[in-house]
Amino acid sequence: MQHHKVHAKAMAAIPYTLYHGTFIHTPELDRLEIMNNALIGVNQKGEIDFVSSEYAGGSQEEAIMFFEQKTGESHSQFKYVDTSKDPLKFFLPGFIDTHIHASQYPNAGIGLESLLLDWLTDYTFPMEDQFTDTNSAKIELAKKVYSKVIDRTLRSGTTCASYFTTTDPHTSNIFADLCLKAGQRSFVGKVCMDHNETYPSYEESFEECQDSMSSMVKYISSINPHNETLVRPIVTPRFAPVCSRKLLKWLGSFASEHNLPIQTHIGENKNEIKLVADLFPECDNYASVYSDHDLLTNTTILAHAVHLTKAERLLIKKHLCSVSHCPTSNSFLTSGEAPVKQYLHEDKINVSLGTDVSGGFDSSILTIIRQAILVSHHLAMKSNDETDVKLTIPEAIFMATKAGAKAVGLEHQIGTFEKGKRWDAQLIDLNSPNSIIDIFDWQIKKDRKSMSDLLGKWIFSGDDRNCIKVWCNGRLVVDKTVDEWVFIKH
Amino acid sequence: MQHHKVHAKAMAAIPYTLYHGTFIHTPELDRLEIMNNALIGVNQKGEIDFVSSEYAGGSQEEAIMFFEQKTGESHSQFKYVDTSKDPLKFFLPGFIDTHIHASQYPNAGIGLESLLLDWLTDYTFPMEDQFTDTNSAKIELAKKVYSKVIDRTLRSGTTCASYFTTTDPHTSNIFADLCLKAGQRSFVGKVCMDHNETYPSYEESFEECQDSMSSMVKYISSINPHNETLVRPIVTPRFAPVCSRKLLKWLGSFASEHNLPIQTHIGENKNEIKLVADLFPECDNYASVYSDHDLLTNTTILAHAVHLTKAERLLIKKHLCSVSHCPTSNSFLTSGEAPVKQYLHEDKINVSLGTDVSGGFDSSILTIIRQAILVSHHLAMKSNDETDVKLTIPEAIFMATKAGAKAVGLEHQIGTFEKGKRWDAQLIDLNSPNSIIDIFDWQIKKDRKSMSDLLGKWIFSGDDRNCIKVWCNGRLVVDKTVDEWVFIKH
Repeated sequence: MQHHKVHAKAMAAIPYTLYHGTFIHTPELDRLEIMNNALIGVNQKGEIDFVSSEYAGGSQEEAIMFFEQKTGESHSQFKYVDTSKDPLKFFLPGFIDTHIHASQYPNAGIGLESLLLDWLTDYTFPMEDQFTDTNSAKIELAKKVYSKVIDRTLRSGTTCASYFTTTDPHTSNIFADLCLKAGQRSFVGKVCMDHNETYPSYEESFEECQDSMSSMVKYISSINPHNETLVRPIVTPRFAPVCSRKLLKWLGSFASEHNLPIQTHIGENKNEIKLVADLFPECDNYASVYSDHDLLTNTTILAHAVHLTKAERLLIKKHLCSVSHCPTSNSFLTSGEAPVKQYLHEDKINVSLGTDVSGGFDSSILTIIRQAILVSHHLAMKSNDETDVKLTIPEAIFMATKAGAKAVGLEHQIGTFEKGKRWDAQLIDLNSPNSIIDIFDWQIKKDRKSMSDLLGKWIFSGDDRNCIKVWCNGRLVVDKTVDEWVFIKH
Repeated sequence: MQHHKVHAKAMAAIPYTLYHGTFIHTPELDRLEIMNNALIGVNQKGEIDFVSSEYAGGSQEEAIMFFEQKTGESHSQFKYVDTSKDPLKFFLPGFIDTHIHASQYPNAGIGLESLLLDWLTDYTFPMEDQFTDTNSAKIELAKKVYSKVIDRTLRSGTTCASYFTTTDPHTSNIFADLCLKAGQRSFVGKVCMDHNETYPSYEESFEECQDSMSSMVKYISSINPHNETLVRPIVTPRFAPVCSRKLLKWLGSFASEHNLPIQTHIGENKNEIKLVADLFPECDNYASVYSDHDLLTNTTILAHAVHLTKAERLLIKKHLCSVSHCPTSNSFLTSGEAPVKQYLHEDKINVSLGTDVSGGFDSSILTIIRQAILVSHHLAMKSNDETDVKLTIPEAIFMATKAGAKAVGLEHQIGTFEKGKRWDAQLIDLNSPNSIIDIFDWQIKKDRKSMSDLLGKWIFSGDDRNCIKVWCNGRLVVDKTVDEWVFIKH
């Protein structure tokens, strides 16, 4: 297979850019850093060249002079992005969604009456089965759905996502093309499953899976821009109940051989856990099913992890796996309340956030942050010591950014604003023309308390309308100030 | 006091209008009626003149002919609103928000770290205290906040709301003016409280409260449009801990004397319940505090009711009071999970929905419906029989419309599409130009299952952008197809 697409956004040249304004990020769990009036330089590779948090300049000329003095370099062309005059704008690292089923996007909001296992059979498998074909109508459907979900997530500030597609390799490759076209950093997980008892038409054979995985890895390695790796394959056994032992074992060795990350589901629902125990009586527990088949690595993402035993938590910690917490999905499908604060602080497990579209009805990580906090409040209602249970806003932002970066194995490349990392970022405007947040004059101050109140307003009342620009790897991939003109007359 | 405002929207003449399209409402708890291709006539009083659910016509002329044959009347002027060609548009009764603090709107999203009693002292009382003045800067502040909250709720489809303002009568009257100006049906609850231990500067004396209540009732009765009652006063003892026995008793008799509805808080938080037990040792329980002071009537709204004993539920049922369930607030402030399904089906209590701005961070009843369902799922996680606990979409819509109408004492006037009721309605467009919902071609069908799936998409993924027109009492008060031009370029 050859390059056969125009990857417009991911192929564009990156101008050296100086960003001047307020930057917010979470270098550590529960430590939110607000850099007012900082200057960040991003080079032509999309890398953060320097971060000056104590920058005093005001104009483009001053910024360029500052750059030249600081780096000893000079460039013939600069871009200067200045939001420093606007107290309601700030930059945040792009969100990282560590669990999302791209193919299920049309089902978002549908299936409320079901629990996990019925929901898979009644809604999910029939939907995904649509993609498993090579006829042209099905390919058009795949393109439509995949383009939409990439567009929606990107426009909500998700600069990196770890996706499940379907078992079909052809449309999974198309999905990889579309990610590059949109410029989103992404992990493409062709779903692997050779044993689907409840919906037998939607499965592949062991050999088909082997072929598909090999050709997909080859294809994706061929399409990235020069010197960049924006789109990567991820080894994706759907979950233990639909995989043979042989397939699980092979996927474990395939991941190791090709140095690939892994993603799957664990401990989402009690009936599912019982089913796994029945199907794998030789394994100690659900997590052991994966470790026994060499699927627990330091780049394994375990989605949900609502119901874990102490033994499982120790095993997950031992292998340095990450959890993808999907609170919206867990509430929608009545799966349960994952004790995330405990995973973070007691078990020291890396916990990131996932939308889990379409178990989760929302494709925006901002609303997942909100729901993660609310779900932790529901856990706190039954707890004796609330502070041990309730997530803070900084913790939730950390999970959505830096922990996400670690989960996908890119902790040195994305997740915070630090020298050497890639410029994957979003510009938030609390006063965007069509914003649903109302902020009153007296609330606009730049002190820490006011900023923290404004952050609360954004987390709880904001939405995609407040995310006005998005960059992946230094490239501006969403610009609503140009794409959308909104006129509101009152 | 005299009319001193131009009440533009509430004073406008109402043209006889024929509405043709899909209408969805809940005539009974858990019975959702979808009328495809129906015709509804609304007369010049804003009353529904007829509902024809089996209407077969197609053009304006046919609709007028149908009207003339059906009613034997004729009019020189008709308005014809036709959405019947668009499968993604439907009419729904306007939402009824039975618990919202207008004055707290600036605090939405702020105060996550607090529980109820601290939150009141640290955030709420200082905010409301700003309104308690007659100097012109404070009046401007009040106008700004009040205009904004009325505008936001109306634009999210709330056609009727029962508001708390502050203790201040002057700005409460201004609030009533602003409701008329915007055309929203509303209940204005000047907050009554003569005993505020934790924030003593924000309280009134018993006599001040008496004067304020009398003058407010007089003022509001003077400002409504001819032959209509759009804005009404509601007797509002804040909650037991901040009211003297004398004040509670007087407010009970004042409500009875003037035939006014009542609203207050109950059983929101465990420390609050303990405080009430300490302050009113002579009363059997929290609900008894109110019944002992003649405050439980068939038009009393009890907000929250998270933690009620069986004795309290019986007392509330006996007096035919309504509950305002505020799930978003209860999750945000970690107050608890109200067993609403049990109230509805076992206790046969009328349960409506409230945003509880700013304990609740969201001013839209659509998102309260969503959160009510999710909170019921959290209750179900601990229940043996899930179906006894989980709210359905029809139940939640019922709570947001018909139960709300009953709570505010207008069950014969609003809440469903029935002959004789007022046309308080919203037009939902799942495909509005800036909609965040994505619907794919094959999902657009008019059968019951598809409509129910689309309703799920709206409830879980939709927002204010899908509410494109709003009518109160027959008058078009929000029209986003005219007010907002949105151009999205891709």
